[in-house]
Amino acid sequence: MVRRNLTEKIEASFRSFGFVPIDTPALEYADILLGKGGGETEKQIYRFTDNGGRDVALRFDLTVPFARFAALHQQELALPFKRYHIGKVWRGENTQRGRYREFTQCDFDIIGSDSPAADFEIILMIRNTLMNLGLGVDIKINHRGLFNRFLSHIGQLENSVEILRTVDKIAKVGIDETKRTLAGIAGDANGRKILEYIDAGNEENAAPDFEQTLDRITRLSGGPSPESERLSLLHKFMRGATGGDSAEGAAIYGAFSLDPSITRGLDYYTGVVFETFLTELPEIGSICSGGRYDDLAGLYSKNRISGVGSSIGLDRMLAALESLNKLPPIGGFAIAAIACVKQEHAGLYQALADKFRHSGIPCEVFTDAGTDDGKNLVKQFVLAEKKGYHWVIIPGEDPLRGPLTLRNLVTRQNKENLSVEQAVSILTSFPSPS
Amino acid sequence: MVRRNLTEKIEASFRSFGFVPIDTPALEYADILLGKGGGETEKQIYRFTDNGGRDVALRFDLTVPFARFAALHQQELALPFKRYHIGKVWRGENTQRGRYREFTQCDFDIIGSDSPAADFEIILMIRNTLMNLGLGVDIKINHRGLFNRFLSHIGQLENSVEILRTVDKIAKVGIDETKRTLAGIAGDANGRKILEYIDAGNEENAAPDFEQTLDRITRLSGGPSPESERLSLLHKFMRGATGGDSAEGAAIYGAFSLDPSITRGLDYYTGVVFETFLTELPEIGSICSGGRYDDLAGLYSKNRISGVGSSIGLDRMLAALESLNKLPPIGGFAIAAIACVKQEHAGLYQALADKFRHSGIPCEVFTDAGTDDGKNLVKQFVLAEKKGYHWVIIPGEDPLRGPLTLRNLVTRQNKENLSVEQAVSILTSFPSPS
Repeated sequence: MVRRNLTEKIEASFRSFGFVPIDTPALEYADILLGKGGGETEKQIYRFTDNGGRDVALRFDLTVPFARFAALHQQELALPFKRYHIGKVWRGENTQRGRYREFTQCDFDIIGSDSPAADFEIILMIRNTLMNLGLGVDIKINHRGLFNRFLSHIGQLENSVEILRTVDKIAKVGIDETKRTLAGIAGDANGRKILEYIDAGNEENAAPDFEQTLDRITRLSGGPSPESERLSLLHKFMRGATGGDSAEGAAIYGAFSLDPSITRGLDYYTGVVFETFLTELPEIGSICSGGRYDDLAGLYSKNRISGVGSSIGLDRMLAALESLNKLPPIGGFAIAAIACVKQEHAGLYQALADKFRHSGIPCEVFTDAGTDDGKNLVKQFVLAEKKGYHWVIIPGEDPLRGPLTLRNLVTRQNKENLSVEQAVSILTSFPSPS
Repeated sequence: MVRRNLTEKIEASFRSFGFVPIDTPALEYADILLGKGGGETEKQIYRFTDNGGRDVALRFDLTVPFARFAALHQQELALPFKRYHIGKVWRGENTQRGRYREFTQCDFDIIGSDSPAADFEIILMIRNTLMNLGLGVDIKINHRGLFNRFLSHIGQLENSVEILRTVDKIAKVGIDETKRTLAGIAGDANGRKILEYIDAGNEENAAPDFEQTLDRITRLSGGPSPESERLSLLHKFMRGATGGDSAEGAAIYGAFSLDPSITRGLDYYTGVVFETFLTELPEIGSICSGGRYDDLAGLYSKNRISGVGSSIGLDRMLAALESLNKLPPIGGFAIAAIACVKQEHAGLYQALADKFRHSGIPCEVFTDAGTDDGKNLVKQFVLAEKKGYHWVIIPGEDPLRGPLTLRNLVTRQNKENLSVEQAVSILTSFPSPS
């Protein structure tokens, strides 16, 4: 119930932006799933030969199946296509809290658009979706194209993949080791330049101004370029999305920062990249990362499909909400139970329940009258409380015509001699009953 | 979107009865899943050894995982526990329309109650859930215990499993072959008695009265018994649930019939069993079957957990709804798109979208201004229509303060010079716009 409650809130955010759901099979041909996979993936994947002799595997992310889906359906899709996909994926990793071998991802992508407005929409959705869960975020943004332009400027473009991967691990391995690794790849002087570009070790000024940082990396990468221009547009959109100078606006603006050290290890990103940290729990790492790619479905289609997307790891999110004591409270979906006073009235109780349900009051019909030791109703009150209900409806001798009694489990008070209509009216005013 | 729309409608029905969702892993240890499996299951299951040397398999139904779940959590669950589970299962079968190797089941069960009221609630839920999808049903009910009592009466109890399986296949193989098979198992005379009990070949009186049939099989099984008494109670509940003599009541009552030929092949059922046929498409067979069992978790627990449950096959249901042209119409979740007039305003458009979303109007922000050939807006109208939207919001020079234009894609009329508030008010009145 906790998980469903959470995914429903996330879906509501996605849908409010006009994103639509897709699903794909969990089990696919292994060569489809592994087309882009490197060694790491191959080791972690659940792969086997089925009884029909087919080489199949469980999906290990939702990106590869989406690429196949997009290639297959590109003629039918109205582009730009905005989809979300909440589904299970499987990896044979070591488990820890918030990290399991079977886990759920919530992906959302816009494909068929190269617009900076699409980049912006994805990061705004991250911010709004997490805000709706009561979470403050710091979304760190960077542009891999601009990083590569800088590397080209210092003559290190051919080492780009290795350098980006090294920089990606700086939070994990520390500055000193990163410095040594970079020196090994690019030489001492260039290593220092790279550390300067990513602003490593800048502890005092932990969240420098977006524009100042952009000016600095624009200069270091050889002056204005289409990439620096795109970051500048994103910054303009952020200010625009604030809708002026309201407090809400300032909160939106404050959620984004420019961080030249963000590179994302995966090599299919080509443009803007981003990672999302919880302001109250930054130590758990990024809970929603992503970026722009210029060729999603290259393995399955001759057409280039560009896009931008991101993914929330549901299990890590759950662990974070639990740590922060922010799991939304949930009871049952029903708010009331109809007590089973006389077993032989079970059919009439269902007809009574229908009257409440038709008035928008989901309720459970208890099916067991319990023992005949005189504690019949008390036991049903205890059960109703355990199930998180606030009310027990106690039908009378004529269940459909009344009168009946309402038990408020919070105040432990009964209201007697009610008509069905009066009882409906009291429960409709829940959760602020008189 | 079609599938999600359908499962959401089904879930809404389940939740209105106070049922709560659970989920279990798709991948489990093979010995857990296969504990109760016979030869058929073993042949169909996706089973393999993972990289850690574990013998694992994909779940092939939702009942076995539920049994494990119930055994594991029996101390925490407030019994009777009413759960539903909508999830994928896998079987290596031959595929056909509405039948795939990866498919979705919608299970719902009440455990920890032996009450006939629980039996009744499950069959009433089947009827209400399918009625909410616009489907008329014929739910055929029987009691395996009463069938066994009859077999005992004619001295054939030891052949019960074989006889029940033979009877279960009568619709598939026909009366003549069933007669021959039964004669082989139980002898000619007993074979005839069994066919008489199940009322085989009664074409004229295809839906005989519930009470008449109950009287007949009560007599044939040696007179009144706890099993015949339970069927009699179910009949009483059906009449009770009609809430009197209303037309709605008659419709409920008419959805149920007593059919002594229903046995369900699976051997874990011990009490009431049932199958559900669509009145408009009976030939596709039962789309929702189930029954009462007295020992769900026997493999995993010393405690007996009794219950009653049923399962809807989502894929067959989808195929049926398609055949009947009853798939609920769906568009996007959004109803409007905000046109991209000027790329540089992308941030302001998101702030504008927020105003609509806060008024309960989900809308998509278009991220691409299209080409500069003067057909900019026309192309965005076409895209919005393809996505199933009814409106395009065309922002002006000052997107947040207005004025703006609303394009109705159905009437192809524009409303110009609207304030944001006026536009919100028009869209709020959707789907009956002025």
